[in-house]
Amino acid sequence: MYSLKSVITFGAALLAGSASAQAPITLKAMGSFHIGGREITISGKPVKEVTFTPGGVPAKVDPNGVYQVEQMYVQYFIPQDQRGPLPLLMWHGGGLSGVTYETTPDGREGWLNFFLRKGWPVYISDAVERGRSGWAMFPDVFKSEPVFLTKENPFERFRIGAGPGSYNKDPAKMKMKPGGQFPAEGYDNFTKQGVPRWTTTDDAIIRAYTELVDKVCPCVVLVHSQSGTFGQVVAQARPDKVKALVLVEPAGAGDSKLAANLRNIPILAVYGDYIEEDPRWPTIRANELRFLEQVKAAGGRYDVINLPQIGVKGNSHMIMMDKNSDQVAGLIQNWLAKQELYRP
Amino acid sequence: MYSLKSVITFGAALLAGSASAQAPITLKAMGSFHIGGREITISGKPVKEVTFTPGGVPAKVDPNGVYQVEQMYVQYFIPQDQRGPLPLLMWHGGGLSGVTYETTPDGREGWLNFFLRKGWPVYISDAVERGRSGWAMFPDVFKSEPVFLTKENPFERFRIGAGPGSYNKDPAKMKMKPGGQFPAEGYDNFTKQGVPRWTTTDDAIIRAYTELVDKVCPCVVLVHSQSGTFGQVVAQARPDKVKALVLVEPAGAGDSKLAANLRNIPILAVYGDYIEEDPRWPTIRANELRFLEQVKAAGGRYDVINLPQIGVKGNSHMIMMDKNSDQVAGLIQNWLAKQELYRP
Repeated sequence: MYSLKSVITFGAALLAGSASAQAPITLKAMGSFHIGGREITISGKPVKEVTFTPGGVPAKVDPNGVYQVEQMYVQYFIPQDQRGPLPLLMWHGGGLSGVTYETTPDGREGWLNFFLRKGWPVYISDAVERGRSGWAMFPDVFKSEPVFLTKENPFERFRIGAGPGSYNKDPAKMKMKPGGQFPAEGYDNFTKQGVPRWTTTDDAIIRAYTELVDKVCPCVVLVHSQSGTFGQVVAQARPDKVKALVLVEPAGAGDSKLAANLRNIPILAVYGDYIEEDPRWPTIRANELRFLEQVKAAGGRYDVINLPQIGVKGNSHMIMMDKNSDQVAGLIQNWLAKQELYRP
Repeated sequence: MYSLKSVITFGAALLAGSASAQAPITLKAMGSFHIGGREITISGKPVKEVTFTPGGVPAKVDPNGVYQVEQMYVQYFIPQDQRGPLPLLMWHGGGLSGVTYETTPDGREGWLNFFLRKGWPVYISDAVERGRSGWAMFPDVFKSEPVFLTKENPFERFRIGAGPGSYNKDPAKMKMKPGGQFPAEGYDNFTKQGVPRWTTTDDAIIRAYTELVDKVCPCVVLVHSQSGTFGQVVAQARPDKVKALVLVEPAGAGDSKLAANLRNIPILAVYGDYIEEDPRWPTIRANELRFLEQVKAAGGRYDVINLPQIGVKGNSHMIMMDKNSDQVAGLIQNWLAKQELYRP
C-alpha cells in the first residue's frame, strides 16, 4: 500500500540542496494572459479529415476561416511585499522565450526569482511567434522561413565557447572561454530552451509589446539582445509609460530620429566580457553607444556598465545565466534604486 | 518628476477586483526546466547570412550541424505549506500548452492556483513541439505538416458553441450552448492560447513525459483531452511512479493489452455536458469506459463523474476554463483526499 510517510521523505529529498534553502516567495497574485494580435481570414483550401489521437475519432478540419495570429503571452508574479513600486517587464532575446529569466541552465534561481525576492512585480513575456505566444502559417502570414539554430551556433556567437570550432557534442570536449562565467554543465539545457524564430516579424512583436506597455505600465523595461531594439522603440513610442530602460547587451538601438523621446527615461546598458575579441560585438556596442549619445545630446542620460572594466570578468552574452548572474542582477538593482525606483 | 505615490496608487488600482483579494500564495520554490529530447544531425545544406536585427550586423548561419529536438518544458511551483504530499503534474490538451491551467480566459485564477492554494506542488508542462518546448523542422524531423485551428474549430468541437455555424467573428453574434459554462467574453482570449501542433509526434511526447515522471514522481497525473492517452500510457509504463490518474475528458485511452498495469492506480474520469448531442464525444467516452472496465477486470478501480448526472450542468470540453472551474476542481480535490493522497 502506498505510504504517505515515504512520499513526504521523498519530497524533502527532492528539494534538498535546491533554492528552497532560501526564504519563501510570497505572492499577492500570479497568472498569465495573452495580449494583442489580429484576425486573418484564409479561404480556398480543401477540407481535411484529421485523427488527432491515434485510434481516436476522426474530425473534419476546415482550414478556411478566421485565425488568431500575432498575439503575445505574458506571465506575471506580484509579490505580497511590493518594494519595487512599478512592474518590471523582462523581454528575452532572439530564438528564445521568457524561460530565459526563470532558472539558470545549471538549476540556480533566475532573474525572475531575484527581482521577485527584491519585491518587484515581474511580467515575463514570450515575443510574438515564440514559445507560448504560438506562431502562424508561413508564407501565408509570416513572409519568410523560420530560423533554427544548431547547438554550435549560440555556443560561438554568444561568447560562451572559445571561438570557431570550440563546440563539441561531447561536453567534455567543448572548449569554453578561458575564465568564462557561463556554466558549462548547463549548455545542453540552454539549447533546449531555444525556439524557432522569424526575422520578418519585428513589426508584429513591437505592436504586441506596445499593447503590453499600454496595459500594465508605468513600468521598468529590462531587455536582452534582440529585444534591445524592441524596448527602445517601444519606449520611444510610449515615453510617458516607460520609467527606466535596462539594456542587457542590446543587439540593436532605437530610432535615431526619435532619440529625444528617451530624454526623460534613465537608461542603463550592461555589457559582458570578450567583446573586443568578437567579430560582431564591437560594432553592435558602438552602434548602441552612438545612439545613447544622441539621446544624451537631446537632454537624456544613460549609464554604461562594461562589466570587465569594473572587475566583473568572464560574462558571456547570456549574462542572466552566467555563474555570477546574481551579482550582475545586484548591479542592476542598485542602479534602479539610485533612480529612486525602489523603496529602500 | 516621477511620483512614487501616484505609482503605488496605480498599482493598487490595477489589482483591485482581481484574484489579489484572496490570501497570498507562499512558495518554497519556483522555477522551470527542460527535459528529454535528442540530438539530430543535419548536413548538406548551404550556409546563409542572416541579419537577426534590422540595421544589425549580419551573422553567418550554417544550418548544418547538431540540433536539439523534442525536449519538453516544465514549470514548477512548490508551496511552503505542502499538504498534497505528492507533486501534481498537469498535462494539457492538443493545440494548447500549459497555459491551459494558469488563468481562465475571463481572468479568474486557473487550476494551477487552485491546487497550489490547497498545498499541492504543481508541475505544468508544454508537450513536445508546443509552446516553450519549441519545435523542429519538418519534414526533416517531424514527418507531417503542422495543424492550425481556425477560431471556429474549437468553438464547435469543444462543445462551447451551439453546434455547426454557431461561431461568429462578432462576439455578440456567437451562439453559445444554452446554459453553457464557458465564459463567452473569454473566447477570443482562449483562441490566443492556441499553438500549432503535429499529429505525428506522440512517441516523442510520450518519451518526454516518461522522463518527467522518472524525474519528479511518485506523483498524481492530471490530464486533459489529447494528454488522456499520454497519461494512461505513461502510467502503464511507470505503474510504481503514478499514484493516481485524473482524466479530464480524455480524448483517448491507454493500451488495452497493458490494462492490468493500472490495477494499483486509482483513476478518476470527469466528463462535462452536451456529450450525447455531440457527433464524436459519445464514442470517445465509450472507448475510455470500455478501457477502464478492462482495468477493473484486472483488479483495478476507477470512478467516473459525469458532471450533469450529479447536477453540475453546462460544462464544455474546457472544464478548467468554465465559469464553475473551481467547483469541478473541488470535486477532483475531494476525490484525491478520498484516495488518501492529501493531508487533511
